[in-house]
Amino acid sequence: MKPVEIRIIITGGTFDKEYDPLKGELSFRDSHLPGILKTVRCTLETSLEINELTDSLDMTDVHREGIAKSCLASPQKRIVITHGTDTMTLTAEYLQKRFQEEGVSRTVVFTGAMVPYSVNGSDALFNLGAAVSAAQLLDEGIYICMNGRVFQAGKVMKDRGKGIFTDAETDG
Amino acid sequence: MKPVEIRIIITGGTFDKEYDPLKGELSFRDSHLPGILKTVRCTLETSLEINELTDSLDMTDVHREGIAKSCLASPQKRIVITHGTDTMTLTAEYLQKRFQEEGVSRTVVFTGAMVPYSVNGSDALFNLGAAVSAAQLLDEGIYICMNGRVFQAGKVMKDRGKGIFTDAETDG
Amino acid sequence: MKPVEIRIIITGGTFDKEYDPLKGELSFRDSHLPGILKTVRCTLETSLEINELTDSLDMTDVHREGIAKSCLASPQKRIVITHGTDTMTLTAEYLQKRFQEEGVSRTVVFTGAMVPYSVNGSDALFNLGAAVSAAQLLDEGIYICMNGRVFQAGKVMKDRGKGIFTDAETDG
Amino acid sequence: MKPVEIRIIITGGTFDKEYDPLKGELSFRDSHLPGILKTVRCTLETSLEINELTDSLDMTDVHREGIAKSCLASPQKRIVITHGTDTMTLTAEYLQKRFQEEGVSRTVVFTGAMVPYSVNGSDALFNLGAAVSAAQLLDEGIYICMNGRVFQAGKVMKDRGKGIFTDAETDG
Repeated sequence: MKPVEIRIIITGGTFDKEYDPLKGELSFRDSHLPGILKTVRCTLETSLEINELTDSLDMTDVHREGIAKSCLASPQKRIVITHGTDTMTLTAEYLQKRFQEEGVSRTVVFTGAMVPYSVNGSDALFNLGAAVSAAQLLDEGIYICMNGRVFQAGKVMKDRGKGIFTDAETDG
Repeated sequence: MKPVEIRIIITGGTFDKEYDPLKGELSFRDSHLPGILKTVRCTLETSLEINELTDSLDMTDVHREGIAKSCLASPQKRIVITHGTDTMTLTAEYLQKRFQEEGVSRTVVFTGAMVPYSVNGSDALFNLGAAVSAAQLLDEGIYICMNGRVFQAGKVMKDRGKGIFTDAETDG
Repeated sequence: MKPVEIRIIITGGTFDKEYDPLKGELSFRDSHLPGILKTVRCTLETSLEINELTDSLDMTDVHREGIAKSCLASPQKRIVITHGTDTMTLTAEYLQKRFQEEGVSRTVVFTGAMVPYSVNGSDALFNLGAAVSAAQLLDEGIYICMNGRVFQAGKVMKDRGKGIFTDAETDG
Repeated sequence: MKPVEIRIIITGGTFDKEYDPLKGELSFRDSHLPGILKTVRCTLETSLEINELTDSLDMTDVHREGIAKSCLASPQKRIVITHGTDTMTLTAEYLQKRFQEEGVSRTVVFTGAMVPYSVNGSDALFNLGAAVSAAQLLDEGIYICMNGRVFQAGKVMKDRGKGIFTDAETDG
């Protein structure tokens, strides 16, 4: 299987949150992605871009347009986006709409974490691994890779009560 | 994307090694897989089977035949196998030969770890996530998922000096 | 050295905070102390008491009186108290005053953590070990064990800008 | 309590062992102590000395004499020694004898770990915290700080079956 270079666009979210001992709360300092890729011995060519470090609850369409622009400008056509879980489905749908408008297609895989990488019992590494594989293997389209599953944008929702992603309920 | 149930066949390897405080060395006690799948909030249906807990340097074709038998008997046609890295390519090739003989086909994805799950700086979770995605998305065949890459059996080798998997050198 | 049984009174603080994946914030679920003492192979007889699980910024003299009562009622005369760092010095001084009023004496050692036990890079285990030793070796009095140092109540302050405990500045 | 500067003499042992992914076994690379003291926010003045990085099963009286020499040459009279648990009691007794011969006295506290610092579930930080407190508070003498307890050299043994230190059995 010929390895393809993938782009990883970092937008923040729980994945990259870190404990601030002085403030006693979780916040962003820097992305863990560069260190993680080294730790897990990733030899796939990856091009990292810190788009922003934002809590996804604070994300607006202005941010989403910035992410879309990054995807459109990316020389790599296969892209992983780390994103907060709360509005991950919204950004995925936003990209889908924008890509249609622009008449372009990419393979974009969103992933994130329910527990920060820096906290015991994190799902960050598992989710990232799942997304990196998926970005290499999936056809063009916008996807969400969480909970060991692969969802298509527009057909997935976050069950906030359970903290998991599930198939979106569809109208009869 | 309709989720498919996958089987995870556990064979040991560095992935599942644990420090034994009394002996002062790494050995097998039990598999971490059941706990890991819970920790990472995997909601994909998985059927776990502990085939054995062996260091892959100790693996012979007798063990490999046992793994082949497990794959052939598996009701799930998509299978992840956790395996020691040292002879992972050999077992992958063994399965390929045996599946051809039996005239069956499966999607089998091998993965493992260079650093045990129970040790700081482990690649186990990342590799497992990568393999779980790959097992859902790949066509029938035997694959190795390590270092963020997806290799086909027979076309991959372990570079022991660097501790990574690379494309197998092919004869001119 | 004849081992003495010590009491560990748990009051919460950063030490025991845990990430809540559904709320996306740190909160209390349970104390990690019972698990910790097993993990670190503590064979010193310890009697654990969960007095409360509170952020020390929320602590009032009502809480402090409850802690004082626990100390006074304790059959063990050597006591470790896990406590949030922000008002640890206040509770220490409160106990000192109350013990004088009651005419009793105990060896009480406060400790806590700047980074929760459940977060990477925590100081919780180191501080707890320091406090457990100190509680066995110190004469009667109220102490704070943080940053590898042993301070006496009333002679210590928290430098919030640096996140460390230092000798209290004294008037010329 | 006036803080005293302590010396930490590193001799290796399980405490500092690290997983070597290429060899698939635990070995020594470097000491974790400098990093640990920073992580746990130790502000006590400490002077670190790497005496050696040895498995304590390989330690002979030649090594022990080297450790004794380091203690005798130390400008700090309060010393923590990290040491493998298997022969920790022997080195403690060796120092006791040598200090008597030299007519000098120091406060020396041995500690170590049953599980390496770099492995999940390690007792290293707890034991180090306990030893750092003990070294500040104990009178002159040679001690072992393990399992939350403080033992005097010559009156302690390691129960290898249980992996804990206990009071030495004494003749009736």
